[in-house]
Amino acid sequence: MASLTIIDIAKICGVGVTTVSRAINNHPDISEETKQMIMKVVRENNYVPNNNARNLKRTASKTIAVLIKGLNNPFFIRMIDLFEKGIKDKKYSFILHQVYEDQDEIEVANELIKEKKLKGIIFLGGYLSHSKEKLDQLTVPYVLCTVGLSSDFDHYNYSYVSIDDYAESYKMVDYLCKLGHTKIALISAKMRDRSIGQLRYLGYKQALEDNGIALDEQLVRPMKAHLESYSMENGYAVTKEMLEQGIDFTALFAISDSMAIGASKALLESGRSIPEDCSVAGFDGLDMAYYYHPSITTIQQPAAEMAEEAIKILFDLIHKKVTHVQKKFSATLIERPSTGKASR
Amino acid sequence: MASLTIIDIAKICGVGVTTVSRAINNHPDISEETKQMIMKVVRENNYVPNNNARNLKRTASKTIAVLIKGLNNPFFIRMIDLFEKGIKDKKYSFILHQVYEDQDEIEVANELIKEKKLKGIIFLGGYLSHSKEKLDQLTVPYVLCTVGLSSDFDHYNYSYVSIDDYAESYKMVDYLCKLGHTKIALISAKMRDRSIGQLRYLGYKQALEDNGIALDEQLVRPMKAHLESYSMENGYAVTKEMLEQGIDFTALFAISDSMAIGASKALLESGRSIPEDCSVAGFDGLDMAYYYHPSITTIQQPAAEMAEEAIKILFDLIHKKVTHVQKKFSATLIERPSTGKASR
Repeated sequence: MASLTIIDIAKICGVGVTTVSRAINNHPDISEETKQMIMKVVRENNYVPNNNARNLKRTASKTIAVLIKGLNNPFFIRMIDLFEKGIKDKKYSFILHQVYEDQDEIEVANELIKEKKLKGIIFLGGYLSHSKEKLDQLTVPYVLCTVGLSSDFDHYNYSYVSIDDYAESYKMVDYLCKLGHTKIALISAKMRDRSIGQLRYLGYKQALEDNGIALDEQLVRPMKAHLESYSMENGYAVTKEMLEQGIDFTALFAISDSMAIGASKALLESGRSIPEDCSVAGFDGLDMAYYYHPSITTIQQPAAEMAEEAIKILFDLIHKKVTHVQKKFSATLIERPSTGKASR
Repeated sequence: MASLTIIDIAKICGVGVTTVSRAINNHPDISEETKQMIMKVVRENNYVPNNNARNLKRTASKTIAVLIKGLNNPFFIRMIDLFEKGIKDKKYSFILHQVYEDQDEIEVANELIKEKKLKGIIFLGGYLSHSKEKLDQLTVPYVLCTVGLSSDFDHYNYSYVSIDDYAESYKMVDYLCKLGHTKIALISAKMRDRSIGQLRYLGYKQALEDNGIALDEQLVRPMKAHLESYSMENGYAVTKEMLEQGIDFTALFAISDSMAIGASKALLESGRSIPEDCSVAGFDGLDMAYYYHPSITTIQQPAAEMAEEAIKILFDLIHKKVTHVQKKFSATLIERPSTGKASR
């Protein structure tokens, strides 16, 4: 199981070490024929050049990390591929690092910066409610990608890509109101949420108001704190509880597609039809929302564009072309059979 | 944005560098009171110890990588968390590295071993059909976890955890036969697959034979090569094609839950009922299969036990307690409303 060295390769080929090195590094001072012969041996023996200086340079000084909070969110998984490809295209190496729900991403980032000598960071998912002082301790450029920012946060000091959570939530609730619904349940974020969840709640509230519908607090249901955030299980539990309590609603808006699926299951299981008895709408634009039956109306986030822009901003920060960039993308309401006119 | 050094912390605390070091490293020669005071300053300033020797030891010599092929497979995502926790519990650091469908995992592994000085590898997902010579080039211990092994592979030379794909597939098809189904469609692996996909196909074939049902080749449908393997999209496309061709079947078994969901969508969209017109069964035991409506009958793999065992084997290999360990786990057929008695 011992791995070959460049000396072994040279011996097998019957040439000097320098010649092998020239072949591997595509040096001009070597005949095409010799190069082909050496590279054949390199391939057959699965030899990996182990130039320490080069490795050090590559691994120690040109790494970018994506810190993800919410690895089981299918929406983020799609973005990871795009980040990895984009970062490798720039000849940087890529590290994917998971941050758990109870961990502080800034602390995790600071440790990684020192340990892996990072050149930049993309934060994907989660919430930031840290003080400016704490964020300023980050010693490398970073971009926040669909990270929730607390409402009292000074947004203009940071670089981020996101959608306008307030406006997109407003769009969905306004659409449900225009279908004639007046009793619209909301599965919202946990109570302490002061970012994405709050913005989507405020969009809901404003759309009701603009449609002349009084806010009914018993229709606003935060996801359960003891269950995984934004999950199918959570949407299911919240909806089941509402049904058991006999709460009356003709439409339900869950602030993630996964929760909308869980909510649909609870409704269908109880014998209700979608959308005849209750319309259901989600948020994110997951494949799953389409394959569910009936397919679920959702707000589709432009994941690919957002990932590309995050990388562009990060490299502009690294090369000091910009200081801060904020970019909010438009999302699209996709109307599907899970929503229909209110029947009562 | 400059980060603090141990000297800065010592200055702030009004103590010597050695005292700070003792506090951080939990050394006995320091009073509890002084330690508390220093650790408060450390925390407030978000100071991360940067002892090069220690970092080198930690990052350069005690890292285990999980190489995953199929990051968008929700079944694997559940396992990653378990791997990360298990590896960190052993005081090793953890790297998650994605292998793309068109990449050779052994080559990727060899590069990572040199670059990150790995101590061990867990291969998660994908197929291995490499020669013994090629696998023997891996210079660190490794465990294959739910990796497909080609049928001509000498299994006893390698360590792996898996389920018995042949037996579990047999179990599901036998169950469908016992419900009275004789026209059972199979959404199988791609044509060139010689591992998991082949085993599940052979289990299907044998169960039909043992139930006195002739194999009908037009009911065996490999997933589409141009679409993502095992995906909802793939199951949908294959099923839609069968329906358009007017193929007659009363049950459908897809070798992944995601494909079973896609297949269900194609059936429901065409106006058929599940299970009245067609029973649907999947494989894996994803949450999604439960939340689909109707909930989908599946083979539940014991993901947590498999992940734990893979880690145990890897550390036993690292500590040279064992040479090879193969462990096949039993999976469970979970009967749900998507399957019922054949009505014709």
